[in-house]
Amino acid sequence: MTETVDLLLVNATQVVTCASSGPKRGAALADVGIIERGAVAVDEGRIAAVGPTAELQSRFRGRVHLDVTGKLLCPGFVDCHTHLVFAGDRVDEFERKLAGASYQELLAAGGGILSTMRVTRAASLDELVAVGLRRLHAMARLGTTTVEIKSGYGLDTAGELKILAAIEQLAAAAPQDIVPTFLGAHAVPPEFAGDPDGYIELVCKEMLPAVAAWRNESCFGALGVPVFNDVFCEQGVFNPMQSRRVLEAGLHVGLRPKIHADEFVALGGTRLAVELGAVSADHLDATPQEEMAALALSETIAVLLPGVNFHLGSHHFAQARRWVEAGAAIALATDFNPGSAPILSLPLVMAIACRYQRLTPAEALNAVTINAAHALGLGDRLGSLEVGKQADLLVVDAPDYRHLAYWLGENLVEAVIKAGRRLRA
Amino acid sequence: MTETVDLLLVNATQVVTCASSGPKRGAALADVGIIERGAVAVDEGRIAAVGPTAELQSRFRGRVHLDVTGKLLCPGFVDCHTHLVFAGDRVDEFERKLAGASYQELLAAGGGILSTMRVTRAASLDELVAVGLRRLHAMARLGTTTVEIKSGYGLDTAGELKILAAIEQLAAAAPQDIVPTFLGAHAVPPEFAGDPDGYIELVCKEMLPAVAAWRNESCFGALGVPVFNDVFCEQGVFNPMQSRRVLEAGLHVGLRPKIHADEFVALGGTRLAVELGAVSADHLDATPQEEMAALALSETIAVLLPGVNFHLGSHHFAQARRWVEAGAAIALATDFNPGSAPILSLPLVMAIACRYQRLTPAEALNAVTINAAHALGLGDRLGSLEVGKQADLLVVDAPDYRHLAYWLGENLVEAVIKAGRRLRA
Repeated sequence: MTETVDLLLVNATQVVTCASSGPKRGAALADVGIIERGAVAVDEGRIAAVGPTAELQSRFRGRVHLDVTGKLLCPGFVDCHTHLVFAGDRVDEFERKLAGASYQELLAAGGGILSTMRVTRAASLDELVAVGLRRLHAMARLGTTTVEIKSGYGLDTAGELKILAAIEQLAAAAPQDIVPTFLGAHAVPPEFAGDPDGYIELVCKEMLPAVAAWRNESCFGALGVPVFNDVFCEQGVFNPMQSRRVLEAGLHVGLRPKIHADEFVALGGTRLAVELGAVSADHLDATPQEEMAALALSETIAVLLPGVNFHLGSHHFAQARRWVEAGAAIALATDFNPGSAPILSLPLVMAIACRYQRLTPAEALNAVTINAAHALGLGDRLGSLEVGKQADLLVVDAPDYRHLAYWLGENLVEAVIKAGRRLRA
Repeated sequence: MTETVDLLLVNATQVVTCASSGPKRGAALADVGIIERGAVAVDEGRIAAVGPTAELQSRFRGRVHLDVTGKLLCPGFVDCHTHLVFAGDRVDEFERKLAGASYQELLAAGGGILSTMRVTRAASLDELVAVGLRRLHAMARLGTTTVEIKSGYGLDTAGELKILAAIEQLAAAAPQDIVPTFLGAHAVPPEFAGDPDGYIELVCKEMLPAVAAWRNESCFGALGVPVFNDVFCEQGVFNPMQSRRVLEAGLHVGLRPKIHADEFVALGGTRLAVELGAVSADHLDATPQEEMAALALSETIAVLLPGVNFHLGSHHFAQARRWVEAGAAIALATDFNPGSAPILSLPLVMAIACRYQRLTPAEALNAVTINAAHALGLGDRLGSLEVGKQADLLVVDAPDYRHLAYWLGENLVEAVIKAGRRLRA
């Protein structure tokens, strides 16, 4: 007797599950969970079964039956660190950077984040939703089915709430699951030039309560989607004491921490992440060995963002192999933003990570699926092909998962299935 | 009175012509020839006019009229160095390389080019055409309208002629103009292990006459498309004396030289290219300053292939700025091949070149259009938007040509017009 399900995909050359009871570390990172000549049964938006085609064909009949001979099935990609809602671009700055200006020089000259703040403050909510939606559709074509989006280009209460409102509208309109993060402490706005403590006071006393109130009224509570609170802990931006204040104030209103740590200078941000139970610490280009070890013993995910180093034409990358050897659960993300990472493609991020951080293709794939889901607190719900999880999966035009990181600049994603439904390009 | 033309494209935010009376060098490389609010008139597959929209609208009426407000028009990309016809992939080797094996180690162990030779020899002509066509369609979606394809995975007379036959079939079936290059001297085949001179003898005495005979019967003569003769001049492959022999034998049967020079070790390949009047010298990662100067004074194009360095995870790239400063006419190409450059995307090559070779976006765009056309001897026919040239052009979803190199991993090419006809995705 066979059970009828909404969708049955059969004859995949490989089903790559990325299955794991928790974030993958060490040797587990090298295992993507391959089922050859595999099949996936999907019902009511969830995964009903994963296994060999012969077995699933005997158990299930699909209302829709899809033969994917010669192709690969894998989990939808999870982009766990983006700044996707912004107006304008920074193509002028890109040219100046090519001529040799440093990130901190551009920042000090009132460029960088603040130039995007100006155009984003001036943009309407509708404009922000429109450009955001276009970017999310491009990401969907490249296989990304869940996207974290940070605020942080408003840098005043109204501006930050406008971006959060745009993120909420995108959550309703976009093909992906959207996870919001408040990043009021992204930069010191011009109103507080020279007074970062004054701005931190505003973030803690006015913005964070307003964000908590917004969260309670928003769709995200009902969806069971967490809202995170992030800070850019970096020399010339916010020091560890200011960062701690922001993250503790967020915890006080029920927002779990994330942190931008050790991108250029190691200030102790990773230690702070561990101490405060942050869901992730991100960038980690300059983290000292002892802080790597501390994070590896914690539940905090190490999110590496090599697209940034690539975009900046840098020869220095986060030491991904040391992070793996330390036993950390690593994830990869785009850091999509107009200044340091105009990159929407997680396969390209995987490709960079394999070549310049010496991750294996298996480690890179786990890092954009199951571990990236854990970096959003959603590892029990998505990020792998396991029974009961949301049916977010990709049909990839390749016989073998390693091709995802091997071919460069080509989109191998042939079809995207989100919560059981096939997306239209 | 208005003239009726097949196609009139109007209101481009920029028309980028890349116009030039010859290959671009020095300051000319920094100029892409921008017409704001521009228009292009196309008739009988050729460019009838390029200019401001107001002017062209008063002169022409288009049977098809396309308003491209907010978009960019630029020449179709020319990929002037690929090894596109091969069977199989080298994803296993990719993993071994990530673990640290060098290119020359893999070559010495019978891997590398020879592993692709084995599967390509075993493949049928139909199989080679089928995989080649798939790759060419992917390239077309990414904006490439002209593709050079080298033989070199046969390494015996029948095998090389089979690949040339595949290239000829692709020329009839593919959306692009195809330019064939004979690369019999790509590696020493197992039949001549330890006897490179014996293999060179075969290339010169048997293969080159056979290739010349094939060329005379092929479509390429009628199309006015040159057939080139190339050699891999490199330590452990063919020395300059052997390389010279191959290139002179080619000249003797009317095949103009190209050369793989200075990829790993400087052996004098660039000087040889200049001496023999090669249409291009390619790779050039290790060229000494005095040979740069010699090439800059010649008609030979310097073809840089940074996708290779990127794929190999290398921190060393050809010194593009020195080439520009020396006065060389530089082009960029993918070097598409399964071992050292599994990359089909010229925009990604431009992106790498800007970040790791410090080319400006303008230099990079000229390097994949007008200069790449000259690297194929076709600079008078295509590669720029000028009256009388073949109407190969792209509608790009960006307001400014610099976006092509700025955004990473996203395909901004919205429509491809080849010889006046719009290609279907």
